[in-house]
Amino acid sequence: MRNIVVTGPPRADQDLVRRLGELGTATVHEAQGRSGFLGPAFRPAWAGARRAGTAVTALCWPGDNTMIHVAVEQCQAGDLLVVATTSPSTDGLFGELFATALQTRGVRGVVLGCGVRDVAELRELGFPAWSTTVSAQGTVKATLGAVNVPIVLGGQRIRPGDAVVADDDGVVVVPRTEVPAVHRAAEARIAKEEATRAAFRAGELGLDRYGMRERLAAQGLEYVAWSDLDDPDNP
Amino acid sequence: MRNIVVTGPPRADQDLVRRLGELGTATVHEAQGRSGFLGPAFRPAWAGARRAGTAVTALCWPGDNTMIHVAVEQCQAGDLLVVATTSPSTDGLFGELFATALQTRGVRGVVLGCGVRDVAELRELGFPAWSTTVSAQGTVKATLGAVNVPIVLGGQRIRPGDAVVADDDGVVVVPRTEVPAVHRAAEARIAKEEATRAAFRAGELGLDRYGMRERLAAQGLEYVAWSDLDDPDNP
Amino acid sequence: MRNIVVTGPPRADQDLVRRLGELGTATVHEAQGRSGFLGPAFRPAWAGARRAGTAVTALCWPGDNTMIHVAVEQCQAGDLLVVATTSPSTDGLFGELFATALQTRGVRGVVLGCGVRDVAELRELGFPAWSTTVSAQGTVKATLGAVNVPIVLGGQRIRPGDAVVADDDGVVVVPRTEVPAVHRAAEARIAKEEATRAAFRAGELGLDRYGMRERLAAQGLEYVAWSDLDDPDNP
Amino acid sequence: MRNIVVTGPPRADQDLVRRLGELGTATVHEAQGRSGFLGPAFRPAWAGARRAGTAVTALCWPGDNTMIHVAVEQCQAGDLLVVATTSPSTDGLFGELFATALQTRGVRGVVLGCGVRDVAELRELGFPAWSTTVSAQGTVKATLGAVNVPIVLGGQRIRPGDAVVADDDGVVVVPRTEVPAVHRAAEARIAKEEATRAAFRAGELGLDRYGMRERLAAQGLEYVAWSDLDDPDNP
Amino acid sequence: MRNIVVTGPPRADQDLVRRLGELGTATVHEAQGRSGFLGPAFRPAWAGARRAGTAVTALCWPGDNTMIHVAVEQCQAGDLLVVATTSPSTDGLFGELFATALQTRGVRGVVLGCGVRDVAELRELGFPAWSTTVSAQGTVKATLGAVNVPIVLGGQRIRPGDAVVADDDGVVVVPRTEVPAVHRAAEARIAKEEATRAAFRAGELGLDRYGMRERLAAQGLEYVAWSDLDDPDNP
Amino acid sequence: MRNIVVTGPPRADQDLVRRLGELGTATVHEAQGRSGFLGPAFRPAWAGARRAGTAVTALCWPGDNTMIHVAVEQCQAGDLLVVATTSPSTDGLFGELFATALQTRGVRGVVLGCGVRDVAELRELGFPAWSTTVSAQGTVKATLGAVNVPIVLGGQRIRPGDAVVADDDGVVVVPRTEVPAVHRAAEARIAKEEATRAAFRAGELGLDRYGMRERLAAQGLEYVAWSDLDDPDNP
Repeated sequence: MRNIVVTGPPRADQDLVRRLGELGTATVHEAQGRSGFLGPAFRPAWAGARRAGTAVTALCWPGDNTMIHVAVEQCQAGDLLVVATTSPSTDGLFGELFATALQTRGVRGVVLGCGVRDVAELRELGFPAWSTTVSAQGTVKATLGAVNVPIVLGGQRIRPGDAVVADDDGVVVVPRTEVPAVHRAAEARIAKEEATRAAFRAGELGLDRYGMRERLAAQGLEYVAWSDLDDPDNP
Repeated sequence: MRNIVVTGPPRADQDLVRRLGELGTATVHEAQGRSGFLGPAFRPAWAGARRAGTAVTALCWPGDNTMIHVAVEQCQAGDLLVVATTSPSTDGLFGELFATALQTRGVRGVVLGCGVRDVAELRELGFPAWSTTVSAQGTVKATLGAVNVPIVLGGQRIRPGDAVVADDDGVVVVPRTEVPAVHRAAEARIAKEEATRAAFRAGELGLDRYGMRERLAAQGLEYVAWSDLDDPDNP
Repeated sequence: MRNIVVTGPPRADQDLVRRLGELGTATVHEAQGRSGFLGPAFRPAWAGARRAGTAVTALCWPGDNTMIHVAVEQCQAGDLLVVATTSPSTDGLFGELFATALQTRGVRGVVLGCGVRDVAELRELGFPAWSTTVSAQGTVKATLGAVNVPIVLGGQRIRPGDAVVADDDGVVVVPRTEVPAVHRAAEARIAKEEATRAAFRAGELGLDRYGMRERLAAQGLEYVAWSDLDDPDNP
Repeated sequence: MRNIVVTGPPRADQDLVRRLGELGTATVHEAQGRSGFLGPAFRPAWAGARRAGTAVTALCWPGDNTMIHVAVEQCQAGDLLVVATTSPSTDGLFGELFATALQTRGVRGVVLGCGVRDVAELRELGFPAWSTTVSAQGTVKATLGAVNVPIVLGGQRIRPGDAVVADDDGVVVVPRTEVPAVHRAAEARIAKEEATRAAFRAGELGLDRYGMRERLAAQGLEYVAWSDLDDPDNP
Repeated sequence: MRNIVVTGPPRADQDLVRRLGELGTATVHEAQGRSGFLGPAFRPAWAGARRAGTAVTALCWPGDNTMIHVAVEQCQAGDLLVVATTSPSTDGLFGELFATALQTRGVRGVVLGCGVRDVAELRELGFPAWSTTVSAQGTVKATLGAVNVPIVLGGQRIRPGDAVVADDDGVVVVPRTEVPAVHRAAEARIAKEEATRAAFRAGELGLDRYGMRERLAAQGLEYVAWSDLDDPDNP
Repeated sequence: MRNIVVTGPPRADQDLVRRLGELGTATVHEAQGRSGFLGPAFRPAWAGARRAGTAVTALCWPGDNTMIHVAVEQCQAGDLLVVATTSPSTDGLFGELFATALQTRGVRGVVLGCGVRDVAELRELGFPAWSTTVSAQGTVKATLGAVNVPIVLGGQRIRPGDAVVADDDGVVVVPRTEVPAVHRAAEARIAKEEATRAAFRAGELGLDRYGMRERLAAQGLEYVAWSDLDDPDNP
C-alpha cells in the first residue's frame, strides 16, 4: 500500500445520489442487478436514517484513526465518509468529535468496517453512522494509511466518488459511472412497485400478478389436502 | 423433500393463541416446561411488538422466495408466517410488499430463519417481523420448496397450525395440541408472578419467598465478611 | 471456586461514581488510559440509558440463577449488579422480577455475561441492562456459585466495589482505588473536548488542532491529485 | 419435556446402515434429495473416520452429562450415540471414559451438539466423535433430560433408530424408514460417479458430459476475449 | 496500563508443572474444581502436543508484536509464553523466528489470544502453539505494552509464574500457589479414573459404578417401552 | 453483473508464481508490504499443502456450482481456481469430481469463499483446497454467474491471472503486474530471515538484533523487579 492522499477525485452527480438515498438500499440494490450490497454485518448506530453520499475513502491501520483526520479535509458537502481497516478491528475509530467536524462540512454520514462510539451523541446530532461494531474502545494516531484509494468493505469495492446508499437495511455502493443508469432503473422499479402494492392491498396474489402458477405446476409443485396425507408429521 | 403445498391444516384455537401473544414469550416458554424457544438468533426487525399466530410454514431454497409467494395464498386471518431455508442464507427473502399482502389477509407477523428487508417500511406498517438477519440482498424465484410441512427453526420443530409467540425476547413455538394446557399453565404463572412482583416491591427477598436459605446452607454456601478474608483478591 | 458470599466489601465513592456515569464510557475509558472496556459483545437491552454504580458481583453456573437471588440481598443503593457464568451461556438468567427487586433497593442497573429477558418490561421500568444476549430461555435454581468475589467479564477483571459505567457504547470498569484519579482525568478530558468541539464547529481541522501535518509528512504521507494518477483504480 | 427413557426402539437395518457409512455423507445426502445434513458446525474430533450407526438419542441440560450415563445402557452394537442440549453449551460433556464404555458395547461413534474432550485419547482409541466444540470444561450430574426421544441437531430431526452417517465432511441423518430407498439411490449414484470420474480423468468436461452448453447459451451466457474487453478491471 | 517489564517473578515448581503437563488439561481442570479453562476458542496450531510451563506474560497492542521481543529475554527453561492483546486482533503476532528463539531458551510453547503464523514450520520444529486464530497477517513494532503483569485470556486471569497446561483439548491455567494442591488432586483423580476405565472395559455401567439409579428414580426418571408409547414421534 | 466468461486473460509468469508458492504466504505477504492476505476465515481442507497458481476466477450464485463447470474449461496447467459467491453460502460447491477434472488439467488447487466437500478424497488425491467452510451440502446447476471477472474474497480483490499463494497459514493474492517485484522482495526477505534464524539459534535476542532497546527506553519502557513491586497483582 502506498501512503497517499488522492485529492480531487470526480464525484457522482449529487442530485442523482441524493435521490438514490431517498429510494433506499433495497430498491437501489435491485435496480443495479442485485449487486453492491455490503452484507448484513453493517448496521446503523441508530435506527431511522436513510442517506446517500459520494464516497471519500479512508484506509486505516487497526486501532488507529490517523487517516480519518486526514480524510476530513478531503470531505465536501454531499460526501459520505467510508472507512476500512487493513486488518479486522472492532475498536471505536469514529465518534462525536469527528461527526461534528463532518457535519460542519455538509457530510451526510459515515460507514465504518470497524467500530463506532458516542452512539447516543450521534443520535442527538442526527449524524448517521453504519458500522460492523459499536465500541467505546479508543485508538491511537501512530501509523499511516491512505485516503481516496479504492477499498474493499463487506465484499464490495468502493472507489472515491462512488455513490453510497445506506438505511436500516444496510449499505449499498453504486459505481460512479453507473449512477445515471441505476437511477433510471430505480425510478422505474419504484413506479412498478407502487402498482404492485395497490394490487396486493386489493387482495391480488403474487402467484397471479407474476403469472407463477403455470410454471410452478410445470416444475412439479403439488397441492395436497391435509386430510389426504398419510402422515402429516412426515408428509 | 417433496415439493408440496399442504392445504387446510388444522389450526390451534385462535382465542387461546391471541392470549398467549399477550402473555409473551418468557411466560409461555416457562409454562411449557422451559421448552419451545427458538434461541437468541431470532431478533425483531423493530422493537415493541408482541404477537402470536397460528403457523403457516414455508421451506425455501437459499436466496429464493418462490415459496413465500405460494404460502401467502395459504394464509388466513390469525396466522403467522414462518419461513425456513434448506441451507443457511442471510438474504432478504421478505420485505414490504409481502407484508402488505399479508396484512391485507389479517396475518399477524412473520418469522424468518434468514434475512428480512424494508425494515423502516415494516415499522411504519406496524407489521412485525422476527429474523436471524437484516439484509437488503434480493432473491430469485427459481426453485421449488414446500408449504405447510413441518420445518425446523432455531432447533425447534414447527408444524402448520402450531402457535407461534414472539416479542422483544424472541420466538417460542407451542405445538397445536398443547395450546390449551400451556395456556392454563401460563395464566396460573401470571397470577403467581403478580403476587411475587408485589412482594418484591415491598422489599421481600427471593431467598425468603422461595425458601432458599436452608437449602443453600445445606449445599455449603458460606457467608464471609470482607474484613475477614485473608486475600480479597483471591478469596 | 469456593462457594462463598462476601459481605460488606468497600465501595468506590458514590458521588464520583455517579459523575463517571454522566461522563459516559468513552470518556471514562480514555481517562483511564484506554483500558477497562468490556468489549463490543455487551449491548444495552434498550437504548438511551447511561449509568454507573458500584459492583456487586455474582458468579453463576450456566442456566442457573441461584446466585442472583443471593446477590440481591447484598445490593444497596448505588450498586450495579454484575453477573458472570462459569461456562458460556446464552440463557435469560435475569428478567423483570429481579429488576423490580433491585429497583426497590436503589440499584442502578445490571450487566450480564449471558442472557437477559423481559426486555419490553425492563424498558418500561426504566431499569437498564447490558448483556451479551437477549433470550427468553429460563433457568433452574440448582447449583451454587459465589457472590462478591472477583470475576472476569469481557476480558476485564471486576471486583466488588469497583465502579462500572455503562451506556449505548458498552460497559467500562474502573478499579475502586483508581476512581478518584480517573474522575479527575475524565473531567479534564471533558473540558478539553468541549474546546475541540467548538473549534471543529468553527471549521478547524484535527490535522491543524493536533499539529499532525508535519509528522505525517515526516512519516512519508504524499498528496497526489487524481488527475496525476497513472491508474486511479490501482494507485 | 417428559423425563423418560424410551427402551427398545426399532433400528434401521444394520447392514444397510454400515454400507451407508462406507458411501459417506456427501453421497448419502445427495441420494436423499440433498437433505439431512446437520450443517458445517459439526466437525470431527480427529480426521479420517467414516462411520454410520443407528441413533440412540440423549437430551441433556447444558453442562450436565447425566443422560449420557443413562443412554450408555440403551446402546447396543451398531448404534451411534447422538447428544443434544436444551440450551447452547460448549462444555465437554463427553470424553474418553464414555468412549471406552461405548466401544466395549460395539457402538460406532458419537455426535454431540456441544463439546467433546480427551481428543488425543479418542484418536488413540480409534473412537470417532463429531461435535460443535472441543472443550476441556467438565460437567455436573444434577438434572434430568430424556433418552431415545426425537431431538433436533443442526436443523435436522433425529429419532432413535435413524441412520446417522458421519465423516470428514460432517454428519447426515437418514430416517429409519427411508434407509432402504436411500441406500438404493446411493448405490446408483456411486456407479454413475465412477463413470464420470473416469471421463473427467480422460479430459471430458462437465459442460459436455452434463449437456450444459446449450442451456447456458439460452440463459444468455456470453464468451468474451480478454483482448476485446473495454475495461478488464470492470468488464 | 503502565508500560513495565517485571523481572524475576517467582515460578511454580518446575517438576510439578511438568507433571501437570503429562496429566493433561481435562484432568487438571477437574482437579482444580472445574476451573481455569480458557474456553474453546484456543486451538492448537498442530495436533498432538501436550505441554505445561510456567507463564511469562506479554500484553501487546493489536497488530504489534513489540512486547513479544521484550518477553523473549524474560523467558527461561520451563517457561511457556502467554500473549494477550489490548483489543481483539486476529493478526499473526508470532511465527517461526520467535519459536526458534524460544526453543533455544528451553521454552515449552506459546499461548496467544490472537493469531499465529508459520504453522507448517512450527509443526516441523515441534514447537507447540495454541491460539484463537491462524493468520499470515504481519505486524508492526510501534507501541509499548507490558511484560509479566497479570493478563486476562479466555476469561481467566494469568499471572507470571502460574502453571499453564495445554493439549488438544485447549488450555488451562493453575495459579502458582495452588500448583501443589492441584497436583495432588490430579494424581488422585488419575488413579481413580484408571479403575473406572478398567470397570467400563469389563462392561460395568456408570449408572451402577456411580450409584446413580436410585437418585434418578427419585428425581422422576421413567422408563417406557417404545411399544407402549402412544406417539413415539411426540412421546 | 454481466453473465460473461472472459477467455484468454494474461497470466503472471509461471516460474515466479511457482517460486512464490515455495516461499509461502507469510513471506509473500510481508514482501508485498503486508497486504493481500484473505484473512483467517480461509482454512486448508487438509494440512501440509503449500501451493501457488495463476487465478481463474468464478463468481457463483449461493448453492449453485454452474459457473465452476464453466470455469474448468478455462483452466490450464499452473492455474489455481478461485471461487466467490454473490451472497454468503456455506454449501459444498466443490468436491472430488471437480478436483479430478482440474488435476487432469494441471491445476494446482482451489480457493473457495464457501464450502468444500469430499475432504477425505481430496487428501488422498493430493489436491489442495482452501475454503471458509467444510460442508457435505450439495448444490444445483440453475443460475448464471461469471468467469474470469475480478472478484472479492476475504476483503481482497482477485483478478484473473493474479498469483494466488496458499498454505497452512491461509491465502495471499499478488496482483499479476506486481509479481516480479514481490518475488524479488520475497527472495531478499528469505535471505535475511535465514541469517536471523541462525542468530536466534545462537542465542541473540531480537531486542539486540533489531536495535530495539534504545527506542523502547525512549518510549518509556521501564524494568521493575518483582520484589520491588508494591502489589504484583495490580502493578
